[in-house]
Amino acid sequence: MLEDLKKVVYEANMMLPEYKLVTFTWGNVSAVDREAKLFVIKPSGVPYEDLKPEDMVVVDFDGNKIEGKMNPSSDTPSHAVMYKYFEKVGGIVHTHSPYATSWAQSGRSIPCYGTTHADYYYGEIPCLRVLTAEEIDEAYELNTGKLIVNEFKRMNKDPMAVPACLCKNHGPFAWGKNAVDAVHSAVVLEEVAKMALRTEIINPKVEPAPQVLQDKHYYRKHGANAYYGQGNN
Amino acid sequence: MLEDLKKVVYEANMMLPEYKLVTFTWGNVSAVDREAKLFVIKPSGVPYEDLKPEDMVVVDFDGNKIEGKMNPSSDTPSHAVMYKYFEKVGGIVHTHSPYATSWAQSGRSIPCYGTTHADYYYGEIPCLRVLTAEEIDEAYELNTGKLIVNEFKRMNKDPMAVPACLCKNHGPFAWGKNAVDAVHSAVVLEEVAKMALRTEIINPKVEPAPQVLQDKHYYRKHGANAYYGQGNN
Amino acid sequence: MLEDLKKVVYEANMMLPEYKLVTFTWGNVSAVDREAKLFVIKPSGVPYEDLKPEDMVVVDFDGNKIEGKMNPSSDTPSHAVMYKYFEKVGGIVHTHSPYATSWAQSGRSIPCYGTTHADYYYGEIPCLRVLTAEEIDEAYELNTGKLIVNEFKRMNKDPMAVPACLCKNHGPFAWGKNAVDAVHSAVVLEEVAKMALRTEIINPKVEPAPQVLQDKHYYRKHGANAYYGQGNN
Amino acid sequence: MLEDLKKVVYEANMMLPEYKLVTFTWGNVSAVDREAKLFVIKPSGVPYEDLKPEDMVVVDFDGNKIEGKMNPSSDTPSHAVMYKYFEKVGGIVHTHSPYATSWAQSGRSIPCYGTTHADYYYGEIPCLRVLTAEEIDEAYELNTGKLIVNEFKRMNKDPMAVPACLCKNHGPFAWGKNAVDAVHSAVVLEEVAKMALRTEIINPKVEPAPQVLQDKHYYRKHGANAYYGQGNN
Repeated sequence: MLEDLKKVVYEANMMLPEYKLVTFTWGNVSAVDREAKLFVIKPSGVPYEDLKPEDMVVVDFDGNKIEGKMNPSSDTPSHAVMYKYFEKVGGIVHTHSPYATSWAQSGRSIPCYGTTHADYYYGEIPCLRVLTAEEIDEAYELNTGKLIVNEFKRMNKDPMAVPACLCKNHGPFAWGKNAVDAVHSAVVLEEVAKMALRTEIINPKVEPAPQVLQDKHYYRKHGANAYYGQGNN
Repeated sequence: MLEDLKKVVYEANMMLPEYKLVTFTWGNVSAVDREAKLFVIKPSGVPYEDLKPEDMVVVDFDGNKIEGKMNPSSDTPSHAVMYKYFEKVGGIVHTHSPYATSWAQSGRSIPCYGTTHADYYYGEIPCLRVLTAEEIDEAYELNTGKLIVNEFKRMNKDPMAVPACLCKNHGPFAWGKNAVDAVHSAVVLEEVAKMALRTEIINPKVEPAPQVLQDKHYYRKHGANAYYGQGNN
Repeated sequence: MLEDLKKVVYEANMMLPEYKLVTFTWGNVSAVDREAKLFVIKPSGVPYEDLKPEDMVVVDFDGNKIEGKMNPSSDTPSHAVMYKYFEKVGGIVHTHSPYATSWAQSGRSIPCYGTTHADYYYGEIPCLRVLTAEEIDEAYELNTGKLIVNEFKRMNKDPMAVPACLCKNHGPFAWGKNAVDAVHSAVVLEEVAKMALRTEIINPKVEPAPQVLQDKHYYRKHGANAYYGQGNN
Repeated sequence: MLEDLKKVVYEANMMLPEYKLVTFTWGNVSAVDREAKLFVIKPSGVPYEDLKPEDMVVVDFDGNKIEGKMNPSSDTPSHAVMYKYFEKVGGIVHTHSPYATSWAQSGRSIPCYGTTHADYYYGEIPCLRVLTAEEIDEAYELNTGKLIVNEFKRMNKDPMAVPACLCKNHGPFAWGKNAVDAVHSAVVLEEVAKMALRTEIINPKVEPAPQVLQDKHYYRKHGANAYYGQGNN
């Protein structure tokens, strides 16, 4: 079932240690089949070096396991609700990558200080509030996903224009149009988080990059007038 | 004598350079045989690249060498007293891993700023006081072990719920239910120490993570209701 | 066409991931043929692992593609104007290397704090202003190149004595007498940027190195009286 | 001539890139033959990947080249004067290793914050003043060596008890009883410099480690009562 997607998800998961985004089992990647309304995700707590494509677990949008010998990632309900409501998202990544997690722990959104950020994210990368005691007790992982969906709606942010967020005192989620694209977002987020921290050390009074420069770089890579890369060959 | 345990301890020691926790010979791992009331530990000052399983030294809980051609680690008396009084501990690691050692040098306990920490340690990772001149002169390494045991008792901390500590102006000790588990704790400690430092740079007024979130993550992985991983398959 | 130079430029581009100056496709190297008044540059958005010498693109000093199947780097107009007016420059590099980019994001020039800097750059490495909204809208990449040329003229800096600059909220450009020399400058810039940040953390009141020491080191390696290396054998 | 020592010095030089202490050619190692009153040093400006044992240059204590096809390191006069007056020193290393150089650039001595430092250096690692304009103009490298020798004498420091120093706005020198021991000192210095910086970030009011703890660790590894390692087997 969904053998091709399992392979894709397996390979995207293996990119996490390759890009040094995970220690031990602290991360997971999933990807969706929109027609089948199912997604494929890493099993819970399996070391990357032992992982095989056939270990991937198939889950529906309510978080029910549909196929697979193993338990899916404990974060599965968060992924499920994001697939349900972020309709253009094709892949999702959760990690504890050290710089992005440090921003999450600090409770601050990452300001857009330069074009590296603006090339991928339109505006700041938001740090969302901690769940309430009630939300945690009721359904922690499900409510994490709901919080992400609801906060993006409340802030009127398009998840495809800001394909990442930080969960306060926890860590980052990143996403994209497919699994590889989502991992790319997780890598960029870590780079951006690293540089933003250093930028503030070098100049504690630094301001975000001018909006006109942010717009230029974002639209150089996105939308109808994009001219970066080989797409318009 | 204890040939299987020697192999386990050898392999756990070799994880220290692999995870970049040691420079030169600045670390050691031991593991215990509770029935025999003996433990196996790395020899003192031997470079990791020259180490062989048969070099491991067998020691009793009073720190006496029972078998082995080489001198055991100079930290052996610290390990011995910890095995004697921390009855569920199966493996112990000492390193000078750079971030954890920086916290130890600063004399500060590591606050729990997020779920990466809470997944492994219940509450802050304590930084213990420096030994007194008398304690140092009398029996430095033995008294280091006694201090760890006594301080955990005084603070009413379960060593299995907080499997690591910092010795002020020195460095970290980490432990676990066996040698590999102890090395895992040493790796997590280093990651947590790194992220806590960065968290405080990003937000100098940061507060520890809410207790309810700490509890959620700790008990997601520990105790009767744990649901992380494949254990409840 | 210019097959030898394409190979040189290809190999210089491959040095960027080797020296950890780029993530994904965030960088490009070019080199010039002064007689032909043409330069060779990396194609836009092609991953380094897929790059081949024959993918390199030939461009003239007005930024027109002269030969090549692919689109040249989106930064091509910046390179073109620099080759036109910096007449001794043989190679140019643009990256988003993390420390140099953090200085660029902070909007600060890198002071000369020591001999590592003075060995390669005469005086501070300037951080240039952001382009105006008009300059960005009119011709972003072309105006980036013009700004670099004009600012060096205005500051009366010899581009061969200060072979790098930072573009505010963007990142570094580095150059040299050929492609490999330009990559060397990009590597040194990243090291210098890293050490300058740490220097200011260690001593927030630090002053630049004495001019007499800067002169000594610069002229030990440059000009008629240089005595570093094997050149005077 | 001195073929065995050339091989030793070659291998010690190759440890510098292995331990990530150098970028490009920014470092050199030498070692002495006390009977012959000669030392062997790396040639100037030769990339490590091209270096061969037979490239090493033989020099006397006045800095005269005695044998070798190539120019010796431009820092040769500094090494020469140190061998002349530091009579127990067998090997010397100069690098621009990034953390130690950052301390040198900041103009601060590295305080002893913990046992990692105390195990190798007795007390702080001193940062020496910049040479005067006259000293620089007269004989820069020779006077650098003289400054190190004179300052250790003035401070009443035994160079074998503090086998490293920082030259302000320049970088570190480290030494030891032979070439490998000197490289070890350069590696430890870099680790100590890294941890001291982080220690001060974590606790800006941190004080040096208690003298009694410094003494304990230093004498655990040095002198008649040392008991670390396998030496007393």
